[in-house]
Amino acid sequence: MAEGDPTKSGPTKSDLEQIRALVLDVDGVLTDGGFWWGPGGEEWKRFSFVDVMGISLGQRAGLKFALISGEENPLVDRYAAKMNIRHVVKGCRDKAAALREFAASTGIELAQIAYMGDDVNDLPAMQIAGFSAAPANAARDVLACVHFIARNSAGNGAVREVIEAVLRAQGLDVPEVFLRPRPTADFSA
Amino acid sequence: MAEGDPTKSGPTKSDLEQIRALVLDVDGVLTDGGFWWGPGGEEWKRFSFVDVMGISLGQRAGLKFALISGEENPLVDRYAAKMNIRHVVKGCRDKAAALREFAASTGIELAQIAYMGDDVNDLPAMQIAGFSAAPANAARDVLACVHFIARNSAGNGAVREVIEAVLRAQGLDVPEVFLRPRPTADFSA
Amino acid sequence: MAEGDPTKSGPTKSDLEQIRALVLDVDGVLTDGGFWWGPGGEEWKRFSFVDVMGISLGQRAGLKFALISGEENPLVDRYAAKMNIRHVVKGCRDKAAALREFAASTGIELAQIAYMGDDVNDLPAMQIAGFSAAPANAARDVLACVHFIARNSAGNGAVREVIEAVLRAQGLDVPEVFLRPRPTADFSA
Amino acid sequence: MAEGDPTKSGPTKSDLEQIRALVLDVDGVLTDGGFWWGPGGEEWKRFSFVDVMGISLGQRAGLKFALISGEENPLVDRYAAKMNIRHVVKGCRDKAAALREFAASTGIELAQIAYMGDDVNDLPAMQIAGFSAAPANAARDVLACVHFIARNSAGNGAVREVIEAVLRAQGLDVPEVFLRPRPTADFSA
Repeated sequence: MAEGDPTKSGPTKSDLEQIRALVLDVDGVLTDGGFWWGPGGEEWKRFSFVDVMGISLGQRAGLKFALISGEENPLVDRYAAKMNIRHVVKGCRDKAAALREFAASTGIELAQIAYMGDDVNDLPAMQIAGFSAAPANAARDVLACVHFIARNSAGNGAVREVIEAVLRAQGLDVPEVFLRPRPTADFSA
Repeated sequence: MAEGDPTKSGPTKSDLEQIRALVLDVDGVLTDGGFWWGPGGEEWKRFSFVDVMGISLGQRAGLKFALISGEENPLVDRYAAKMNIRHVVKGCRDKAAALREFAASTGIELAQIAYMGDDVNDLPAMQIAGFSAAPANAARDVLACVHFIARNSAGNGAVREVIEAVLRAQGLDVPEVFLRPRPTADFSA
Repeated sequence: MAEGDPTKSGPTKSDLEQIRALVLDVDGVLTDGGFWWGPGGEEWKRFSFVDVMGISLGQRAGLKFALISGEENPLVDRYAAKMNIRHVVKGCRDKAAALREFAASTGIELAQIAYMGDDVNDLPAMQIAGFSAAPANAARDVLACVHFIARNSAGNGAVREVIEAVLRAQGLDVPEVFLRPRPTADFSA
Repeated sequence: MAEGDPTKSGPTKSDLEQIRALVLDVDGVLTDGGFWWGPGGEEWKRFSFVDVMGISLGQRAGLKFALISGEENPLVDRYAAKMNIRHVVKGCRDKAAALREFAASTGIELAQIAYMGDDVNDLPAMQIAGFSAAPANAARDVLACVHFIARNSAGNGAVREVIEAVLRAQGLDVPEVFLRPRPTADFSA
């Protein structure tokens, strides 16, 4: 757990209690930060079932999710479809603006949103979110300012850790949450 | 090795002696928990030859195997075919029920079955199996209640460890077991 | 940080201040050193977005980049195209000669060039570059003589570390550099 | 470095001096022991350039190589072709017999051959080879009896370590060996 950026007035772990939504970067957060290239111009990425279950658990507890990626890649849409995540921004050059737009369109306050990212292009969004988190292997300047550093690296359960931290801060028992029905979409239209 | 769930009456390592079958979750147990996505909608997973040899060793020693997966993926059938495993359940929403059905259809008592899983959807099956095991990188709530935590992570020999633990508890020498003939199917029909 | 090759007069970390270009080996430096083979003769490699962002940051700060690979593989060109790197040598048998040619064609002195490699075929280039660096998992004879050993292994941010070290040695703030415009090519023609 | 199997009369590290050939298992030795499966029945494996360079260095120093795999997989032939290795056995059920045949056909004595493997099916070959080695993550019964345990895991330089150990035991300087011409085939016909 980082001590927090001294230039920032102090959101603390207790802010986890009021989190209603998690906004996630994709590469280096939901993936391991790698990309595999094949001989025909293909690009593959690696995701984790640990995070899939984590997002499912969060949705069963009523949390909302959004994906904001700097890359223009159809795998982001595919992941969102698999997880019933409706808020997706690809090829994003201004993640803080995308985060503000998510907040405005959903009526969730920024103070109620956790943002998880791994690199310097995530910093502006992290600075306005109520809670910021990063995988253990995030960039040095990110690790220096987030509220929460996961013990796991990206693509190996880092996202799951943040979700479980939110659930526990809200007094929920994770196995009990699993028994709840999973919503078919994370926002009623 | 976990100390065991205090709410549970105490199956101990000595219960390994009476194990006749191992029931395995697939993702995060036989695989490393990751999934690779390609541009055309493909999905790949990574398995390990260390576990392949482990299952083969178990079969030579007379152990039976079953796969119970929450995912609906043809790779489960392919793995079962490679390993001559006849009991396979895919897209499973109730792993405890699937485990009971396996016990009933094979005439092996639940107390004689070891179950290995990695996440909260495995907990109900773990609670009724005679012995429960998890990879080193399993979910926190799973690690808190299993009888056996492998030193290795999933997809890197965690399943093999449990199988060797059973064989050794039964007084068998692993290299000697390898010299036995391998059955062509793990159950006579 | 290696103590440096005693046969070498002593470029030190302070030499990072004058670096204007980074010349990179590809396999085992930008990739994790592995190659995946498929059944139809395909070959895949794994790169990292951490290094992609690192090169982008370096370019925003005015650094030039070149790729020199011993392999004859089109993925090198694809990576160069993605990153707007114009100086590329593939199938290289003499990396020192390729490095001299890069210096001559760009007018950047060897003392102003950092070279990053991981194996014995990189040693001749390392010996003439102003600064030499290697990933944590480089070959023993390479680790014994470079000026800088990254804490990270190849394909997991080792290149990024060197780039950030150069930027910091030059008094630059990494998040601030990210806000600068990225050049569309790393050399004006 | 393992202390050696007490049931074995004692080949020691000094035996590395007389090694003329290395016989290698493939899965879990040249690969990381994993296999990736795709939706169309494909199988991929991951090899390492660190080992590719290691075999090339060994060949420049006059060492001979053979591959003996228990799997029936065309990637073994492809790897052999890439590395100019002429002695290849696939789908091998008796690795000790294959090793004896290699010795007989090449006129190299068993005492001059190092065998590297990772699992129980390698034990018979290991017991007759002059020197035996295993990756750090080999099976427990293998680690208990080999002369040399690599610090690296399979697919990440374990083979390279053994080759360098042989070269150094023979008084060779690895970077100097790299400067020698590489033979186009590792055996004159």
